[in-house]
Amino acid sequence: MKKQLSVLALMCTASAAMAETAPKNVIYMIGDGMGPAYTTAYRYFKDDPTTKSVEQTVFDTMLTGMARTYPDDHTVVTDSAASATALSSGHKSYNGAIAVDTDKKPLKTMLEIAKQRGMTTALLATSQINHATPASFAAHNESRNNYDEIANDYIDNKIAGKLPVDLMLGGGTKYFIRDDRNLVDEFKAAGYQYGDDIQNLDQITQLPAIGLYAAKGLPFALDENPTRLTKLTSKALDLLDNQNKDGFFVMIEGSQIDWCGHANDIACAMAEMDDFASAIEKAKAYVDKNKDTLLVITADHSTGGLTLGAHGQYKWEADVVHGVKATAGTITQHLLESDDLKSVWNKYTSIAFTPENKIKLEQAKSMGDKALNLAVKSIISDTSFTGWTTGGHTAVDVQVFAYGKGSEQFVGSQNNTDIADKLIHFIEQ
Amino acid sequence: MKKQLSVLALMCTASAAMAETAPKNVIYMIGDGMGPAYTTAYRYFKDDPTTKSVEQTVFDTMLTGMARTYPDDHTVVTDSAASATALSSGHKSYNGAIAVDTDKKPLKTMLEIAKQRGMTTALLATSQINHATPASFAAHNESRNNYDEIANDYIDNKIAGKLPVDLMLGGGTKYFIRDDRNLVDEFKAAGYQYGDDIQNLDQITQLPAIGLYAAKGLPFALDENPTRLTKLTSKALDLLDNQNKDGFFVMIEGSQIDWCGHANDIACAMAEMDDFASAIEKAKAYVDKNKDTLLVITADHSTGGLTLGAHGQYKWEADVVHGVKATAGTITQHLLESDDLKSVWNKYTSIAFTPENKIKLEQAKSMGDKALNLAVKSIISDTSFTGWTTGGHTAVDVQVFAYGKGSEQFVGSQNNTDIADKLIHFIEQ
Ligand SMILES: [Zn+2]
Ligand SMILES: [Zn+2]
Repeated sequence: MKKQLSVLALMCTASAAMAETAPKNVIYMIGDGMGPAYTTAYRYFKDDPTTKSVEQTVFDTMLTGMARTYPDDHTVVTDSAASATALSSGHKSYNGAIAVDTDKKPLKTMLEIAKQRGMTTALLATSQINHATPASFAAHNESRNNYDEIANDYIDNKIAGKLPVDLMLGGGTKYFIRDDRNLVDEFKAAGYQYGDDIQNLDQITQLPAIGLYAAKGLPFALDENPTRLTKLTSKALDLLDNQNKDGFFVMIEGSQIDWCGHANDIACAMAEMDDFASAIEKAKAYVDKNKDTLLVITADHSTGGLTLGAHGQYKWEADVVHGVKATAGTITQHLLESDDLKSVWNKYTSIAFTPENKIKLEQAKSMGDKALNLAVKSIISDTSFTGWTTGGHTAVDVQVFAYGKGSEQFVGSQNNTDIADKLIHFIEQ
Repeated sequence: MKKQLSVLALMCTASAAMAETAPKNVIYMIGDGMGPAYTTAYRYFKDDPTTKSVEQTVFDTMLTGMARTYPDDHTVVTDSAASATALSSGHKSYNGAIAVDTDKKPLKTMLEIAKQRGMTTALLATSQINHATPASFAAHNESRNNYDEIANDYIDNKIAGKLPVDLMLGGGTKYFIRDDRNLVDEFKAAGYQYGDDIQNLDQITQLPAIGLYAAKGLPFALDENPTRLTKLTSKALDLLDNQNKDGFFVMIEGSQIDWCGHANDIACAMAEMDDFASAIEKAKAYVDKNKDTLLVITADHSTGGLTLGAHGQYKWEADVVHGVKATAGTITQHLLESDDLKSVWNKYTSIAFTPENKIKLEQAKSMGDKALNLAVKSIISDTSFTGWTTGGHTAVDVQVFAYGKGSEQFVGSQNNTDIADKLIHFIEQ
């Protein structure tokens, strides 16, 4: 029996290799700052408290492994630029690098390779579309802060004589419509449709196209449009579907999970996670209908040092988080503008306006907006037993999720560069 | 070609099912408190700074998935008892439960099932051997705090007329040699060898046996015996090897990762991780020689809210952690006993005795041992950019690692109870 089995094992290996043929389409989703505490928090945030079991999230159905995110130095903690460069090119670089190596030489990205291979390419983000993560797929710059130069690259970085990205949806009019250069006009001249109203995504009907729906990043999901990334994702998949026999590559970033993490604002973060998770559901449904598509999801790093449970207490109160109806920044603005702290507080949170919280908010308000913002967040964190250690990033490994054709390649612990190498290998086939 | 492939696919499924036959031996290792930040930190702690690449740890070579640890209520954050009950029995329970359900009724554990099936059983821990995690495999109690009753169960909880555990190695003489009952004498009367000197593991030459090497937990790895769990693991595998045609079940706990986490002591935690990782290397080597063995490793929860990176800084200084030569508790004791803070500080850490640190330590010392202990830890954490949010546990998902026969069953996101169900399924075969 043993010999028979080992022959079969060999055949299975061969069959696996054959099954390894590349997917036609690649959907690559990056939750900026989405460390393992965020996906865990999101599960308990989404849990229906009336049922005994804890329902699984879309993340739970697709987990395949984890990734190591350290940059190319000994700091251990990466920024979004170095990590996006690793995730787009397969090369580690320094913090701040936009698809350049430590000698500041350009690194070829998977989007560029996809374009060279004749695939349709797309970038979606809730940040400005020239922010670090999307930038590292289609631009090259020694610094993520050179926003204008990066935006220019989306026109100037020709791949085989063509513009690199066929579809861009996100924010950034501040960088694309400038006194020195109007990139939107240049895109139009190059045949791109232009959209500027997120309430009317039908402004765009075909590729190529660019939609810029805010001066910089889109408003936070919790403050304004809780499903904007979900809608942009649906729109993009409609435009990309069956549009090119050579398939498409799209990178979709949940950009602002990270921003809420920097702010140490848990309600803000959960709303961003909810929009990102719904966008993932759309992508997963696309794969269910298009079996030749691969969906890979990861994060670039974790942010804020988020923990569920704090100050020695063995609990985390999702209810408190659900009760918060605006970002701490917005609540702070409303508190600043009103003389009736109690009614503002009760409008935007379900946390009791106790004498203790009243004094804390009044004292903080007298010290200015920054102190008031910190006080608002400290009450929300303390009441929900949410912990934070930093306004920056942390080095914990991030999760890797994969679904569809080729997803078995992403099992186990891997470097963030390995994710890129595997995807590039598929795209090159 | 397609038809040929699908026939092969069917054969592969069949072959997988055949290969799924249960492993003969099960080695189950639990890193108490070992959340994803601990395995990540350990990688960077072990990294050779003279090489460009970051070396992989033994954890990186075996990651298969993650596990959800919530207890059977809506607190989200588990304690070690509820989680060990889930990991031993496949049933969620309340915090504090030792292998009993929410009605305080006993839950059958995989160790008990293994014993029923004629397998040899063993428990190893660096805590007292009747501490929550090992206890939840061989005892039943409504509270983890009933240490004497739990120790009694190791004699009284007969499985098919036999004592439940054939080999116990850990601490706990305080609970086993008591005025009201001397369990060690009872074990000897039942044919057990007894060991009490960890420097002389040869006191034990055969099964059944019990080794108790401290009144309660063993001393911290960083303070005294950095490889005690590694040595106990080697000893146990020697004793268990080829001893029973029906195989063995052993649970090995790295108990004190959690204790260092509760203390927010990063150097303490890394020394415990190092001992646990070395013990895993021993187990992995055993599987390499005995292909019919399955090794599964997980954690019960994370502790302390550990993060790498803190206070907005994008770095984590492993060097600083390496320079710390004793636990904060021990350093505090030495500082209390000496008038020369500087020489004690320089003996036990490589952190500069700056005027700022001098004042901080002197002021704290004048306030007592608790304040001094906090000051020592705050200097170590701040200098290494290590963050903590709590003296308790947190709810982040933990990792699952598997190696050897049946390891493919542990891929993806799973409940901690699923791990137990899979192992029980194997043990029952
Ligand atoms: Zn960030
Ligand atoms: Zn604990």
